[in-house]
Amino acid sequence: MSDGRTIDATTQVCAVWGNPVEHSLSPAIHNAAFAECQLNYVYVGFRVEDVAAATAGFRALHNFRGLSVTIPHKVAIMPHLDRIDDIARHIGSVNTVVKEESGTLRGTSTDGPAAVKALRDRGADPADRHVLILGSGGAARAVAFALAMLPDPPRLTILGVVGEEVRRLAVDLRDRTAAAVQGAILTGESLAAAIATAEILVHCTPVGMAPHVDATLVPCELLRSGLAVFDIVYTPRRTRLLREAAAADCLTIEGLDMFVNQAAAQFELWTGCPAPVPVMRRVVKERLR
Amino acid sequence: MSDGRTIDATTQVCAVWGNPVEHSLSPAIHNAAFAECQLNYVYVGFRVEDVAAATAGFRALHNFRGLSVTIPHKVAIMPHLDRIDDIARHIGSVNTVVKEESGTLRGTSTDGPAAVKALRDRGADPADRHVLILGSGGAARAVAFALAMLPDPPRLTILGVVGEEVRRLAVDLRDRTAAAVQGAILTGESLAAAIATAEILVHCTPVGMAPHVDATLVPCELLRSGLAVFDIVYTPRRTRLLREAAAADCLTIEGLDMFVNQAAAQFELWTGCPAPVPVMRRVVKERLR
Repeated sequence: MSDGRTIDATTQVCAVWGNPVEHSLSPAIHNAAFAECQLNYVYVGFRVEDVAAATAGFRALHNFRGLSVTIPHKVAIMPHLDRIDDIARHIGSVNTVVKEESGTLRGTSTDGPAAVKALRDRGADPADRHVLILGSGGAARAVAFALAMLPDPPRLTILGVVGEEVRRLAVDLRDRTAAAVQGAILTGESLAAAIATAEILVHCTPVGMAPHVDATLVPCELLRSGLAVFDIVYTPRRTRLLREAAAADCLTIEGLDMFVNQAAAQFELWTGCPAPVPVMRRVVKERLR
Repeated sequence: MSDGRTIDATTQVCAVWGNPVEHSLSPAIHNAAFAECQLNYVYVGFRVEDVAAATAGFRALHNFRGLSVTIPHKVAIMPHLDRIDDIARHIGSVNTVVKEESGTLRGTSTDGPAAVKALRDRGADPADRHVLILGSGGAARAVAFALAMLPDPPRLTILGVVGEEVRRLAVDLRDRTAAAVQGAILTGESLAAAIATAEILVHCTPVGMAPHVDATLVPCELLRSGLAVFDIVYTPRRTRLLREAAAADCLTIEGLDMFVNQAAAQFELWTGCPAPVPVMRRVVKERLR
């Protein structure tokens, strides 16, 4: 780390596990945060194939304290943990593992709450609103459950292209939360109908992600003032969807906010200290430039 | 690290495993060496209890590349490795694990060769000499086998206080090497007799280690000019044995040399790069001050 800290044999270790993992920004963001807070922690990345064996090792390496878990291990790691938070159990995946003082391995998901915080922080409180979610994969599940588990949940419309996945997500949300949920196949018609009454649109698919930066699921003529548009894609920071939403005078919220928030929540779970969010945001911005 | 390097998700990880491990100097010495050579490696310490599970994890974490293994795991880790070098097999313990490109876990011991190098570098080449080793534990076994496996091995006398251990070491050396070996219980008489013809004395017990810095196994009247005295204890750097040996005009060799050499050999095994020995030595000296 370029921060004047010294690693010694008491340093606590956190890591991101994925495959591939080489392009992860997480080491940069978390090491900057540890340095800012003068915590004797270090964060590395490990390419993992055998997640069962890796988790056995995580358990046995005493001061290995926390994990960020990414593709393809977010589901596969779950049976190897001791305790799964409700939200992660409902979503069906974890993005965070915390080794508690007792040695217990707790799995949770900070993605959904990070999305809710991003909306609130930018003035788009979802409570009791109508939220349209585009997509039905892992990210959509995380955002949908975080919204549906709020004390005053929004009404949710979920539109996706994989019919069975949309149906499953809608059923799971209705079974496990108090939210009113509709799910349907994403078509020009279903999108136009849903967006007409939606107050917040959350885009949870990879469409528009670099290198396909000219792609968008939302025809610009459907965008209108009064709609808040949140794109969880953060490469590029200003996706075509967000650019066209801004041009249509929508409130826009960047995926970068969610990325920073999920990392900040992980930091707090691992260290028990408030996360230095401005530093973390600055590092991500620098890396994405 | 206070070296301007940045950890990312491609950083290779090495670690020391022990229990306790908190006072290890290895993170400081290896991180300084990685920085000096501008290698994208980081070195941490892990407290380990279940070495089998920890080794399964080491295997599964792809870019976890190397281990320093210390008490109490130097013997216990061996069945979990794929290949053990001859010297480590003879000694019966490893202090180093290397994950080779193929993923094979190779165990070796750099302690004994580090002792031989320390002797040679200070002008006490052991070839064809008479070397007296005090002690018969793990460190004595490492030094004795490295000496006995030389092309021109010295004649070895081993004196220790644990009779069965001394006998076992002498038998193993005779069975597996070409060296002429005598073993006996350490007494005033056996020590005086052996030291009279010895050209090199290697002290391989914890006697004289801090906080018991006034302890020594060797009465100062037995020390004489022409004898080279090597104390593998390095806390303090100048043990009572070395101070009295210097006063008797002996050539003296510090345990610090061996500590630096074993770390340098590990560094070269893990990285394939020549170790920056002066930097490693400086770090150890600073930490021991």
